[in-house]
Amino acid sequence: MNEIFPRGEKLPDIISKYFTGNVWLQMLVGRENEWNCPIGNVTFEPGCINNWHRHPGGQILLVTEGRGWYQEWGAEAREIKAGDVVTIPSDVKHWHGAAKDSWLVHLSIETNISAGNAEWLEPVSEVDYGRL
Amino acid sequence: MNEIFPRGEKLPDIISKYFTGNVWLQMLVGRENEWNCPIGNVTFEPGCINNWHRHPGGQILLVTEGRGWYQEWGAEAREIKAGDVVTIPSDVKHWHGAAKDSWLVHLSIETNISAGNAEWLEPVSEVDYGRL
Repeated sequence: MNEIFPRGEKLPDIISKYFTGNVWLQMLVGRENEWNCPIGNVTFEPGCINNWHRHPGGQILLVTEGRGWYQEWGAEAREIKAGDVVTIPSDVKHWHGAAKDSWLVHLSIETNISAGNAEWLEPVSEVDYGRL
Repeated sequence: MNEIFPRGEKLPDIISKYFTGNVWLQMLVGRENEWNCPIGNVTFEPGCINNWHRHPGGQILLVTEGRGWYQEWGAEAREIKAGDVVTIPSDVKHWHGAAKDSWLVHLSIETNISAGNAEWLEPVSEVDYGRL
C-alpha cells in the first residue's frame, strides 16, 4: 500500500462497534479549533465497512488508496477508488468502506462541524454488501 | 511522481501572476455549496512558489507528494513533504511552494470560506528563497 498520511491507531471500541472489522484512524486536524473542519485519515481493512450514519453538517471523503464502496440510502452503491472525491450532504444517510478484496484509505473531512457529530444507525445488510 | 488526484489545468494568468512558475490546479470541491470548504489539488513545478498572502478564514494544506517550503511572516521557513499537514490561522501572512529541486503537490482546504478569499501580497525575496 502507498500510505501517505500516518495510519494511526485502531478505533476505540466505542466507535469500532459501528464498523464490521478493523479500522485505523489518525486525526490530522482536531475537532475544536478555528478551522472548524476536523480531518482524519481512515484506513479500512478488506471487507470492513461502517454502519449507516448521518453527519449533521455533511462530510467530504478524499480517497487516497485502495478501493471500496459508498452508498446513500435509496440509491445504488458506488464504487470508489484512489483519486475519487465524495461529497455527502448534511443528514444524508449513507455508509462507506472497503471492497471485499481491497484495503481502502480515505481522508474524512467533517464540514460545518458546529452542526454536530455523526449519528450512527443500523448495520448495512450483509446480503446487500455480499452482492457488491 | 505519484499523483493521486487529477493535476488539472495551469492556473489562469489572473492568479498565476502571484506565483514564480508553473502551477496546476484541479478543484475537487467548489466554492459555493453547502460544504463551505473549497478544496483544490495544487501542483507546483520545482522552484515555483507563491507570493506572500493571507486567507481571512484560514487554510489547511495536506501534502501528498514531493517536497517544498512553508513560511509564516516573522518565522523561519519550514520544510514540508508528503504526509505533512499545515494549519494556517486566519489572516496569517505566509507563502508556500516547491523546493528548488522537487515538485510539490498539496491539497488546499480553504476553511471558513464565508470570511472571504485570499489577499495576495508581495513576492517572496529571491535572496531569501535562494538561501533555503
